[in-house]
Amino acid sequence: MAVSPRLSLNQATVRGHAIDEVARACGRAGVRYVGVRREAFEKYAPREVANLLAENGIGPSSLCRAGFVTSADPARRAAALDEARWALDEAAELGAPVLVFVAGGLDVGSRDLDGARRRVADALHELVPHALDTGVRLGVEPLHPLFCSDRSVVVTLGQAAELARPHPRQAVGVVVDAYATWWDPSLAESLCDARERICAFQVDDFALPLPPEHLNGRALMGEGCIDLRLLASRVAAAGYTGPVEVEVFDEELRRQPVDAIVGRVVDSWRSVFGDVCGDGFGDG
Amino acid sequence: MAVSPRLSLNQATVRGHAIDEVARACGRAGVRYVGVRREAFEKYAPREVANLLAENGIGPSSLCRAGFVTSADPARRAAALDEARWALDEAAELGAPVLVFVAGGLDVGSRDLDGARRRVADALHELVPHALDTGVRLGVEPLHPLFCSDRSVVVTLGQAAELARPHPRQAVGVVVDAYATWWDPSLAESLCDARERICAFQVDDFALPLPPEHLNGRALMGEGCIDLRLLASRVAAAGYTGPVEVEVFDEELRRQPVDAIVGRVVDSWRSVFGDVCGDGFGDG
Repeated sequence: MAVSPRLSLNQATVRGHAIDEVARACGRAGVRYVGVRREAFEKYAPREVANLLAENGIGPSSLCRAGFVTSADPARRAAALDEARWALDEAAELGAPVLVFVAGGLDVGSRDLDGARRRVADALHELVPHALDTGVRLGVEPLHPLFCSDRSVVVTLGQAAELARPHPRQAVGVVVDAYATWWDPSLAESLCDARERICAFQVDDFALPLPPEHLNGRALMGEGCIDLRLLASRVAAAGYTGPVEVEVFDEELRRQPVDAIVGRVVDSWRSVFGDVCGDGFGDG
Repeated sequence: MAVSPRLSLNQATVRGHAIDEVARACGRAGVRYVGVRREAFEKYAPREVANLLAENGIGPSSLCRAGFVTSADPARRAAALDEARWALDEAAELGAPVLVFVAGGLDVGSRDLDGARRRVADALHELVPHALDTGVRLGVEPLHPLFCSDRSVVVTLGQAAELARPHPRQAVGVVVDAYATWWDPSLAESLCDARERICAFQVDDFALPLPPEHLNGRALMGEGCIDLRLLASRVAAAGYTGPVEVEVFDEELRRQPVDAIVGRVVDSWRSVFGDVCGDGFGDG
């Protein structure tokens, strides 16, 4: 049975496995996209990763990630901006259309949430010229409010879209992640408003209890309580037709062999989105 | 040094300690309000609790809680509505002006978030006549989105205010809890909009890592990253001048003797809101 041509495996799902292994496993399974993490560049240059993927019939759907631009400390802030520019260059070399941008949380001991949010807006203004130069879009990803203090002061899609609004569409978009956004009572409206700003869509699921390390609670599709078909239909109605990244953070899953992980991802996709392969969201 | 006349101890902070002990400890410390939990009625009738409090110079700031009206199962839904009417009666007997209303999460195995939210709106319509009869306000409390699936599909203050809007102000209000709302980018605006709907204000703090039981992560004020002075000033600017409940969920704190817990609550209040006792939110 063919795999949806829209399915992308985000490398976070297979963390701990080398990118060349991942590329081959995806190639064997017929997965056509991989969402690359910058960890891949510890072993290979971005162009080498692009080649490894291409040899297996795979394109990069995005590069994860840069950001963490919320610090009030000028040196840390400057370093984060330099890092983001560097990551934009890497994304361009890789051939990824999007660099996922995670805002960052509060400085240790800080309670200045409004200030941190202002610094995110300022950082985007500083990064946009380089995004335009490289042809890579900054994809602002809201995270679940659970991560507001430690990872992202941007916590709703509406807020991400507001941050993107002042900038050209080809420079700044928004990333829709199921786990991060499913609870939001304004989500349907925010998706409609975001429209052409949507530059990536990531699927996963929310299940309780949370694991001891709260970051690793993003379950495989179907294991939690998110109506992913409804969400996918809303994202589709907003006009997004690109790759859909499966981005699961599950330590137990990661310990399995790569082929087994890819198999479970494909099965999970089918059980949630049906067997129709056209756009991957048929009603089969 | 006098305790702020607005400080209320929510009984959840001292869970496991009997209400008579709590009343005496609060009386000794000069705390003038207690937020009562329905657990208190396992041992005493609501009027007896009212007397116990009054003997110690204490008034009830609220009764926690009823709700959990999201089930699609008609029998469970009817039982929850009966329970809420019963709790309104109890609140009236206790003399509490507010019954805290927690919406409820998803049925086990359900992914119908929109449906659950509709059922909350419907339930309020059914409960309002009894709220008007008893003279007790239903205080709709949004919880942190972390609890969207298991405890409350109402997760923002804006959403709570929207649910309250069709009803008379004296029948349905909203509860502002710091832990539940601090991350919300629309919070300042939602507070302005809510105004006279605000019928309770609860303070606590958000700190990582979360405890193993994710419900019990509400820290003592000052232990986390919430700018509580800013929040309190926004709540005050919206016009709320009533009691402020300290509602901390901390298993380690609860194991201490009641007087020690009350002492830590008072110290924490002072360290965050200053020593000024007028309204408890001075700039001392």
